[in-house]
Amino acid sequence: MKEFDFIRSYLAAAPKDEGVLLGIGDDAALIRPSAGFDLCVSSDMLLEGRHFFAGTSPQDVAHKVLAVNLSDMAAMGARPRWVSLSVALPRLREDWLLAFCETWFALCEQYGVSLIGGDTTRGDGVFSVNIIGEVPQGKALRRDAAQAGDDIWVSGVIGSAAFALQHHLGNLTLPETVLASCDEALLRPQPRVALGRNLLDIAHAAQDVSDGLLQDLGHIAAASGCAAEIWADKVPLLPELAALMSSATLLQTALTGGDDYELLFTAPYSARERVWEAARLSGVPVGRIGVIKAGSGVSVKDGNGAVVVFEKQGFDHFG
Amino acid sequence: MKEFDFIRSYLAAAPKDEGVLLGIGDDAALIRPSAGFDLCVSSDMLLEGRHFFAGTSPQDVAHKVLAVNLSDMAAMGARPRWVSLSVALPRLREDWLLAFCETWFALCEQYGVSLIGGDTTRGDGVFSVNIIGEVPQGKALRRDAAQAGDDIWVSGVIGSAAFALQHHLGNLTLPETVLASCDEALLRPQPRVALGRNLLDIAHAAQDVSDGLLQDLGHIAAASGCAAEIWADKVPLLPELAALMSSATLLQTALTGGDDYELLFTAPYSARERVWEAARLSGVPVGRIGVIKAGSGVSVKDGNGAVVVFEKQGFDHFG
Repeated sequence: MKEFDFIRSYLAAAPKDEGVLLGIGDDAALIRPSAGFDLCVSSDMLLEGRHFFAGTSPQDVAHKVLAVNLSDMAAMGARPRWVSLSVALPRLREDWLLAFCETWFALCEQYGVSLIGGDTTRGDGVFSVNIIGEVPQGKALRRDAAQAGDDIWVSGVIGSAAFALQHHLGNLTLPETVLASCDEALLRPQPRVALGRNLLDIAHAAQDVSDGLLQDLGHIAAASGCAAEIWADKVPLLPELAALMSSATLLQTALTGGDDYELLFTAPYSARERVWEAARLSGVPVGRIGVIKAGSGVSVKDGNGAVVVFEKQGFDHFG
Repeated sequence: MKEFDFIRSYLAAAPKDEGVLLGIGDDAALIRPSAGFDLCVSSDMLLEGRHFFAGTSPQDVAHKVLAVNLSDMAAMGARPRWVSLSVALPRLREDWLLAFCETWFALCEQYGVSLIGGDTTRGDGVFSVNIIGEVPQGKALRRDAAQAGDDIWVSGVIGSAAFALQHHLGNLTLPETVLASCDEALLRPQPRVALGRNLLDIAHAAQDVSDGLLQDLGHIAAASGCAAEIWADKVPLLPELAALMSSATLLQTALTGGDDYELLFTAPYSARERVWEAARLSGVPVGRIGVIKAGSGVSVKDGNGAVVVFEKQGFDHFG
């Protein structure tokens, strides 16, 4: 990153990380993981115009690019530790990158993450991140560990990001105050890292909601060899949205929209008190929205126990 | 990668890796590094039209994208172990990806690397790789470890890739047989992983030649607080090139062109025999091309001891 010397000053000011033997500047970073931990490794690449609108502020891009990767660590119950960032930009925009870095490094510090690698090159807006986290050996929250009888839980509220997206696509019009809440969800998702770590030894299966709750729950069900049943009236939604549209439209968008970055997890009945306590300790609301059953697939039931049918399940990355 | 089910069959056929507890398919991969090792982590993002020509065959793209990352591991003396790949392509081209995968997974197997993550999305041709390798604790080959008096060594031949590039840019015309050799260097660089590992405890400083030998040697010199002197007539070049141009043109392109992915390293005088032996064991030729001195900067001297001056030192990523 020789082209942008100010990045060095951010790196120099970053908190000292005993696990980083050698940071940016060699052929590779050199890290020393903690003994007794497994490593979680995840990559996400976000493209301007596809994963976020062209013209999104550098602060919002920085937040989202890092937050979605932190969310992957949260979903494993891991402590995020090291991150690499490759950026392609159409031209050398130092002011843009400066604003990007301010948010990026603040978020790194907030979550205790060190930037250990990356490069910048000329190209269309591409932000590619690799993140590495640590989780006590054998304790990671996987998708394939749900068991029949488990409660299904979700953190926060679902669907707000999807409604912001639909507003900006011109498919619906949200009142200003509702839009503000939804934009916050879309642009500034809060990775549930503390909740994920507090759920170790409590939750069975977990993942984050990125492609739509139904599709993501389908992953847990398929990987675990179980069925999942969701109770539509228990899914936590932004209350203001209910007055704006039919409950069918509301539910369709909320459950299939994606971009929530909330934690979706299962835990046994016997762990309910411990789940509430983990949520309280993490400062994150959680709700019990369904149950894991024997069988396969995901079904949604309304307040009368009738099955609700959806047109599509979630986001198709090549759609 | 649900869109491309054939990738699953490659993953299923890949050799079993005891260090991978959970591969592709969850929020993150779960790996268990070997006790007593540090981890080397590197990211490289290659863009079609910038790092390789549009229209490059999928096999050549796959080779290059992985090889440049393996080369970073080689330069640290690390054993490459785990790799993630994010791909953006303009449209779903299954035949293209199938050909890409065949080369990619063959090279993974050749180097003992497991694919543990990645995603595919629609976009202009972008290939973003993160690689993790293991090196015995405290043994990694760093850039900052050169010492005055060290010999400077380089593996293979230098400049062939740069001449292929200049040919394809229309800046010169190479005869067919020479072009074939140079294209091989440009499109199919051979990461010097075995050599790097065999140089642990022998070499002082090392890095791979990616941005041009002079510029990359400058990194070693600067990081180590030393000067470097190169002997122009000792730099290993493709012999057929000498007949085609002046030695000044030849040297300028070879030493500043980049894309060589050879190992550039320093070692003490006392280690010469062990360097030759490491090279022999690795099946890679090496040459002694200069010396590390007290001072700063990189100088090149011709056969008469006169200083050779160059217009530019190497590749500018935002040029």
